[in-house]
Amino acid sequence: MLVNGKHYRTVWLEGHIVNMINQPVIPHRFEIHQCMNYKETAEAISNMIVRGAGAIGATAGFAVAQAVFEASENDGFTFIENAVNVIRNTRPTAQNLFYAVNRVHNVIKDYGTGGVIQKEVRKKAVAEASAIADEDAVSCQRIGKLGASLIEDRCRILTHCNAGWLAFVDWGSALSPIYTAKREGKRVFVWVDETRPRCQGSRLTAWELKEEQINFVVITDNASGFFMKRHEVDMVIVGSDRIARNGDAANKIGTYEKAVIAKENDIPFYVAAPTSTIDWDCPSGDDIPIEERSEQEVLGIVGRDENDHIRTVYITPKGIKVRNPAFDITPAEYITAIITEKGIIKPDELKKLSKDQD
Amino acid sequence: MLVNGKHYRTVWLEGHIVNMINQPVIPHRFEIHQCMNYKETAEAISNMIVRGAGAIGATAGFAVAQAVFEASENDGFTFIENAVNVIRNTRPTAQNLFYAVNRVHNVIKDYGTGGVIQKEVRKKAVAEASAIADEDAVSCQRIGKLGASLIEDRCRILTHCNAGWLAFVDWGSALSPIYTAKREGKRVFVWVDETRPRCQGSRLTAWELKEEQINFVVITDNASGFFMKRHEVDMVIVGSDRIARNGDAANKIGTYEKAVIAKENDIPFYVAAPTSTIDWDCPSGDDIPIEERSEQEVLGIVGRDENDHIRTVYITPKGIKVRNPAFDITPAEYITAIITEKGIIKPDELKKLSKDQD
Repeated sequence: MLVNGKHYRTVWLEGHIVNMINQPVIPHRFEIHQCMNYKETAEAISNMIVRGAGAIGATAGFAVAQAVFEASENDGFTFIENAVNVIRNTRPTAQNLFYAVNRVHNVIKDYGTGGVIQKEVRKKAVAEASAIADEDAVSCQRIGKLGASLIEDRCRILTHCNAGWLAFVDWGSALSPIYTAKREGKRVFVWVDETRPRCQGSRLTAWELKEEQINFVVITDNASGFFMKRHEVDMVIVGSDRIARNGDAANKIGTYEKAVIAKENDIPFYVAAPTSTIDWDCPSGDDIPIEERSEQEVLGIVGRDENDHIRTVYITPKGIKVRNPAFDITPAEYITAIITEKGIIKPDELKKLSKDQD
Repeated sequence: MLVNGKHYRTVWLEGHIVNMINQPVIPHRFEIHQCMNYKETAEAISNMIVRGAGAIGATAGFAVAQAVFEASENDGFTFIENAVNVIRNTRPTAQNLFYAVNRVHNVIKDYGTGGVIQKEVRKKAVAEASAIADEDAVSCQRIGKLGASLIEDRCRILTHCNAGWLAFVDWGSALSPIYTAKREGKRVFVWVDETRPRCQGSRLTAWELKEEQINFVVITDNASGFFMKRHEVDMVIVGSDRIARNGDAANKIGTYEKAVIAKENDIPFYVAAPTSTIDWDCPSGDDIPIEERSEQEVLGIVGRDENDHIRTVYITPKGIKVRNPAFDITPAEYITAIITEKGIIKPDELKKLSKDQD
C-alpha cells in the first residue's frame, strides 16, 4: 500500500537483510527497521517490531532464508536446525509462522552435502521465502475482492485489532475488503476498537484508514457493544492468527467478546484470513496455544507525549499483579463465514478446503 | 475506609468547604481537593475530581448546601435556583445526583422569606445533605452484608470500573460485599477490568483492593471474556449509575458486554446499588440519557511516567475522530439480581420496592 505516495510492503528481503516497517512507533513515526541476521529478525518478531498473522509468517520465512546465508560460515546443518527452532519459538499462536518456517525448512533439507548444493539451497530458500510473501500479498488482494461483495454501500463495519496491510505483506485480511469496497466506489465507515493492551486499533488500523482516506472513528474496546446494541454496526470483520479444523478461530484478545455481542444483536461476524492461517492438524480452538505476554503491556501504555516523544505511562498502583493473554478463541458457532482467498466459507464447511483437496 | 491507617470518607463538608479525595491522581498520589463554593464543587463533579454514583450524589447535596451559604450574600432564592440548575447539569446519567439535589432542594424551598428563616434553612440544608451522605454510607455497608451472603469461600469475582468506596461516601456498592466477605474470613479473588478510557479499574479499584489486602489481578477490558469462557470467573458484580423501573441498569461503558458474556457462560451477574440509584420515573433503559464525554479521554491516556510525574500520552494518529459514550445500558434480562440495602431483588421484582411502598 502507499505511504506518502510510495508503495511499501510490511516486510521485504534485500540481499541478506530483512527490512520491515517498525510497527510499535506507528502512528507517531514512520521508520524502517533492518535485521542483519536471523537472530535480529527473530527478536523483531518476539518484540512485535513486526506483528500480524501474515507479516509474522513472511518475516519468519525470510529469517530461515537468512539463517541459510549465515550457515556456511558456521556449522551448516546444525546451525540451520537451531535457527529454525529459535524462529519457531518467537510467538506461539500465529499459524502463519509455522506454515512459513515449515515451507522454507522443507526446501533446504538437503543442506550441508557440498559447496555447490549449498549455493543452490540458498537460492531455493530465498525463492521459497519470497514466494510465501508474494502469495500472502496475492491472497490478501483476493480476500479483498471476495470480501467486498459482502459490503453494501453505506456499510458501517466494526473491526478489532489490526488485520490491515501492516499485519500481512500487503492489503491485509479484515481491511482488504474495505479497501476494495472503497475503490469500487462504495461509501464505507469503520468503527475501530482501540484494542488494548497494545492499541493496534487506535495506532495501526487508524493510521492505515487515515492514509487510505476511509471514514472511521476510534472507540474504546468497551464501547463497541454499545454501538452494536444501538444497531449502528452493520457487520464485523476481524482477522485471525490460527483457525482450527472445526472453524474455531484465534484472534487478538477481545475478539471473542465482539463475536458474542454481534450474535446477540444479529450482526454478521466475519473472519478474514488466507488459508495459510488454517491449522489442519488442530482439531478445535481448545488445542490452540494462547500466548501470555509481558505484564508491562497492561501496567502501562505507550504513546506520544506533548513533545512528540514516545514514552510509557503507568496506570496501576505499583507492585500489583496482572494477567495478559494476547489472544482468545472465537468458537465457530459465532462466525458467520470465513473470507479466504479460495472463497467465503461457513466454518463448518471448512473441511471442504482441507489440504488433501488442494 | 482506611488510608494509611486513617479513616476517610470520599467527600465531606467542613464548614462551608466541600472536601473530597482527588480521584484522577489516584493511585499515583493521595490528595484532598477543597471546593470553596458551589461552582467549584460543580466543576469537581464535571471534571470527575469526584466520580461514582453515590459520591456524585453526596457531593451534589453538599454543593446545594454550599449554595445556600452563599445565597444570603447574593440574591437569595434566584441564586439558589440558578445554583441547583448548574449542579443538575454537571453529569446527566447518575441518578444519585438528581436524587440528592432534589432532596436538599425540597428542604430549602422556603428560602428567602426572612433573615431568621434563612439561618434555619441553612441548617436544614446542611442537615439534609449530611443525612444523604450518611445514608449512603449506611446503605453501602448494608449492601456489603447482604451481598456477602452470595459470595462463597474461594470465590473469583469479576468487576468492571470502580464501584468501591471511592464511588460512594464509604464502603461502595459492588466492592462492599467483597470487603465484608473478606472480613468474614472468606478467601476472595477479584478480576479487575482496567476500564478504559479513564481506567477506574486499574487505578481506583486496584488501589482500593490493594489497601484492603484483597487478592486481585488487573486485566484489559478485552480479557474478561477470555477468563469467563475458561470458567475462571464465578460471579460478576458491578455498580450502577441509574436503574430504570423495569430493572435495566446504566453503568460504565463496557458493562453491557460483560453482562452478555456472563449470561452466555452461565455466570451470575449482579448489580449492586443503593435504592437511591433507582429512577422510578424512568420506565426503561432506553429512557436513560447517556453522557458522551471528551474526545481527549480516548485520544490519550493519563498515567505516571518513569519519574512519577502524571502526564498524558496519545495513542492515535493526530486529527482523527473518536466517539466516547461513558455509559451503556444492561437490559434486565442479563441481570441475575440487584443487591440493594433493602434486599437482593430480581430485576423484574423491582417494582415491589417502589417508592409508594417505602
